[in-house]
Amino acid sequence: MMQKNYFKLEEPFKLSRIAYVNGNYLDFKKSLIHIEDRGYQFADGVYEVFNVSDSKLVDYDLHLKRLFRSMGELKIKSPIAKNTYIYHVKNIIKKNIIINGLIYLQITRGVAPRDHKFPVNQKSSIVITGRHLPADEYEIKFKEGIKVTTHDDLRWGRCDIKTVSLLPNVLAKQDAYIKGASEAWLINKEGHITEGCASNAWILRKDNTLISHPSNNSILTGITRTSFLKGLRKHSIKFKELKFKIKDVRNAKEAFVTSATQHVTPVIKVDKIKIGNGKPGKFASIFRDVYMEALQLK
Amino acid sequence: MMQKNYFKLEEPFKLSRIAYVNGNYLDFKKSLIHIEDRGYQFADGVYEVFNVSDSKLVDYDLHLKRLFRSMGELKIKSPIAKNTYIYHVKNIIKKNIIINGLIYLQITRGVAPRDHKFPVNQKSSIVITGRHLPADEYEIKFKEGIKVTTHDDLRWGRCDIKTVSLLPNVLAKQDAYIKGASEAWLINKEGHITEGCASNAWILRKDNTLISHPSNNSILTGITRTSFLKGLRKHSIKFKELKFKIKDVRNAKEAFVTSATQHVTPVIKVDKIKIGNGKPGKFASIFRDVYMEALQLK
Repeated sequence: MMQKNYFKLEEPFKLSRIAYVNGNYLDFKKSLIHIEDRGYQFADGVYEVFNVSDSKLVDYDLHLKRLFRSMGELKIKSPIAKNTYIYHVKNIIKKNIIINGLIYLQITRGVAPRDHKFPVNQKSSIVITGRHLPADEYEIKFKEGIKVTTHDDLRWGRCDIKTVSLLPNVLAKQDAYIKGASEAWLINKEGHITEGCASNAWILRKDNTLISHPSNNSILTGITRTSFLKGLRKHSIKFKELKFKIKDVRNAKEAFVTSATQHVTPVIKVDKIKIGNGKPGKFASIFRDVYMEALQLK
Repeated sequence: MMQKNYFKLEEPFKLSRIAYVNGNYLDFKKSLIHIEDRGYQFADGVYEVFNVSDSKLVDYDLHLKRLFRSMGELKIKSPIAKNTYIYHVKNIIKKNIIINGLIYLQITRGVAPRDHKFPVNQKSSIVITGRHLPADEYEIKFKEGIKVTTHDDLRWGRCDIKTVSLLPNVLAKQDAYIKGASEAWLINKEGHITEGCASNAWILRKDNTLISHPSNNSILTGITRTSFLKGLRKHSIKFKELKFKIKDVRNAKEAFVTSATQHVTPVIKVDKIKIGNGKPGKFASIFRDVYMEALQLK
């Protein structure tokens, strides 16, 4: 059933050794789900990625709240009680001895004979895995800044729900990777940059106002974005939810992405547009510190 | 790992007893894939549904051609040689003793540590299952006609690729089911009816011209649609690829859906709009016969 070369793959992250799958803690290699899980056949599921820093969960409550919102929007029932998530998530951190890394948590509408409409009284599926991240990975990216490409935003109409229906994101990210960039900013039919494939997109205007796409159905309201905004308000840094285009990127002083694993990371190039002098600007450290101060550990 | 009540579910179709999963013929209950299969985490996969009639495959060559087109568009490598698909598909028909039913075939980009960009040299995953369908199911629906609701077309920008990224289809189909209908016609931002969640949509104008949405990125070009069109041409029945709206449905003489399992099925109601006199019209049998004559068995 498993591809034989899977565990020989070279990859930057150590794999989870123990995964939580529908009530059991399993050897990662033997962590399997049924071929008729609706996550597999219909992308009928949601997920969250929690950052782990010094064995502590970053912004856990906000992630859990969003997870329940996603399930609510799709009418997926939580497979376990809300207050027991923390137990299993912490177990995965412990069992995999994760100091710095991430937790991936996925919930689908469960296993049922293939039929588009919802199964009746079906128990949802849950999978929790953990992964180590090199402690200095963020620092390196922060110092160097990242390159970003642009790509048509081909996604569906409910990007506000964090679903596993990620194929358009996959295709845009692959396109970025081929072009030597680490993220793609998605441009919708109106020419607006909505967000990245797996991060929110920000520009700092010359008037020192930070801009990001409004929180609506076109973007996923990132948890890092939310905590960062809280920090910005605290420090009275000017921010506006505003739609912006490539011409605004061209005029920007600095640019950033935010996500659970990338925190606040400076963008130094968007396609062929050099941001500022092509190196992270002076606001990068300020914004990173503002975010780091605002996040909550658990 | 498995939900315990899965195999107790009442459901109209008998389950596949034997499935083909990545090189092995397995007991359906033990047909599992890894939690990091990209089909599960990213909807990074494609599929086909083949109709089986009197143990023969309907329009096999066209389905296989579309499968390879879908894989090509997503740069997913075929896990097996093109000419060996028929062997495994026929095996599933035989091993499950399917006289009338369907074959479900899914291919994903395989198992790899979670990362949006494509894994390198990863073998794709393949799953083939079969299912029995009651022989008279189609006849009943054909005689009675079906009810259809309408729903916002929330899908992504590449509906021409038959991917497992089906969440918007699932939500629209569930909405139809709640409202007592068996399909939802999807209406895009311009007010055009593109297609159904799992079928193509057709109306017969009062001038006896059959209308269906043009074959572009907004619809999946159905195999049944293709064979039906071949038949229409043969019999010189007037057909136009044309975008149509609800007002055109209101003025329509008859309406239909086509899909591998529904062939040509008359639609008698769209939301509250009664089509014709609310019963299948006289063209239903003509169109069904035209399609039945045009399909190819293997």
